[in-house]
Amino acid sequence: MHDFSFNKVAILGVGLIGASCALALKEKGLCRTVVGYGRREEHLQQAKERAIIDAYSLDSRKACRDADLVILATPVGLFTGLVEQIHGSLKKGALVTDVGSVKGTLVQELEVLMPDGVHYVGAHPIAGGDSSGIGEARADLFSEALCIVTPTRRTDPGATEKIITLWKQIGAKVELLDPERHDEIYAAVSHLPHIVAYALVNTVGDINAEYLTYAGQGFKDTTRIALSSPEMWRDIAILNRENLVRLIEMIRDNLEHMRNCIDTMDASCIDQEFNKAQALRKKLK
Amino acid sequence: MHDFSFNKVAILGVGLIGASCALALKEKGLCRTVVGYGRREEHLQQAKERAIIDAYSLDSRKACRDADLVILATPVGLFTGLVEQIHGSLKKGALVTDVGSVKGTLVQELEVLMPDGVHYVGAHPIAGGDSSGIGEARADLFSEALCIVTPTRRTDPGATEKIITLWKQIGAKVELLDPERHDEIYAAVSHLPHIVAYALVNTVGDINAEYLTYAGQGFKDTTRIALSSPEMWRDIAILNRENLVRLIEMIRDNLEHMRNCIDTMDASCIDQEFNKAQALRKKLK
Repeated sequence: MHDFSFNKVAILGVGLIGASCALALKEKGLCRTVVGYGRREEHLQQAKERAIIDAYSLDSRKACRDADLVILATPVGLFTGLVEQIHGSLKKGALVTDVGSVKGTLVQELEVLMPDGVHYVGAHPIAGGDSSGIGEARADLFSEALCIVTPTRRTDPGATEKIITLWKQIGAKVELLDPERHDEIYAAVSHLPHIVAYALVNTVGDINAEYLTYAGQGFKDTTRIALSSPEMWRDIAILNRENLVRLIEMIRDNLEHMRNCIDTMDASCIDQEFNKAQALRKKLK
Repeated sequence: MHDFSFNKVAILGVGLIGASCALALKEKGLCRTVVGYGRREEHLQQAKERAIIDAYSLDSRKACRDADLVILATPVGLFTGLVEQIHGSLKKGALVTDVGSVKGTLVQELEVLMPDGVHYVGAHPIAGGDSSGIGEARADLFSEALCIVTPTRRTDPGATEKIITLWKQIGAKVELLDPERHDEIYAAVSHLPHIVAYALVNTVGDINAEYLTYAGQGFKDTTRIALSSPEMWRDIAILNRENLVRLIEMIRDNLEHMRNCIDTMDASCIDQEFNKAQALRKKLK
């Protein structure tokens, strides 16, 4: 008899990340059954047919009943409403986690919403890319990926330990961060780039959408993340708005400075900006 | 005996594009010898050792003497100075072309600088990526790539035909564009994205360079072109400044609009911008 870490896992939101979690948990033998919840039955039906989930419900409360682990994997804007819905259906000792790209005040709100005896620990796996459906879901999506886990002073240490172990077992490299710090960092390295990519595509569209046919690999790479789900990223932008607004103002000022250097043909000013950026970017290569 | 299209080809600037031209011309048997010119002897020596060029000179005039085809492949800011240098060394009937990312007024200037009996045709192969040395040069770099050829009313039709044939023979798909139109298009789909990528990296650097260690694939893709040669892109920015300044102002306004939507938590405004960008970007997938 297998000693599963979790008997029943409920995955709320069976998209790329939720479905990959399901596949990874099963492949590593960490759970007996996975139940999915989502808004569109056809998607859940597909996930079941592809053996990503064992069962599904269009009722989040039913999906969570008797679950040992509940993973919030919808767009982040739905998390608090979902937790309010499932509140009375969570069993004592259940563990709730999420895979959302925003932590900060959202983590505080979720902590407060948990019923007695249910522990919440926030997590954010850095994986997934621009697709959002189950089409590209795979058991090894998190292999070698970074997963940020964001316990707070209120978080149960045993629950944190279980979430860290889970992510390590499915192949991720775990790093702990304070939720506020997480949001400052990911506003810069993820949320701002999405805003910029959307704005860049729209700017080309504004001048002449037909110009897109002349785009080379550089444009394609720079704007790949503009393929990302607008719904998902709208929620992220709103929930991390304070950090993001500040960064949009900073890049606007950087662009304004470059505009002036170029307009006045100030070669050394342009050199300075481009060299600074190239040197920084090389650290990532 | 082989009937070479060109007996001697001079490549001024043996970087990624210049070296790949040399390799492609040789592989297709289009020329007998390739002579390279550049500023740094060690690079030219390496190119010769790797059989990319047959000979080299640190004197552009010597490199061009008796050449049937001269390819300008340095950063674009050096083109006019180089043509002034080689003016007296170009043989009658020689063909001069370039591989620069800016056309527009530069093409007009180069046309005027050509000696009698020497024909100039502008070209811009859309290939290369972010590296600029010979390390990644290859004969098939232009295979299936788009190459824009920019004849004007003054251009000799026979010379245009030869340049079109040359690019087709080395595998490129050729498209003709007016030089001014070329610059409008590439300001949008190439030059602006470079400015944005440099600005994005600098913005993260301004807030905290250590945040870069948390960057995932999205950030890496969005900023890959910030690895590009600052010298090359400074020249492009200056020579195409009118189009570029206008576009920087447009993206600045788009970012400002998104900033306001996010700051006021106007979900439908954010949805509209993100959906518009996603739909446009999908056309390229």
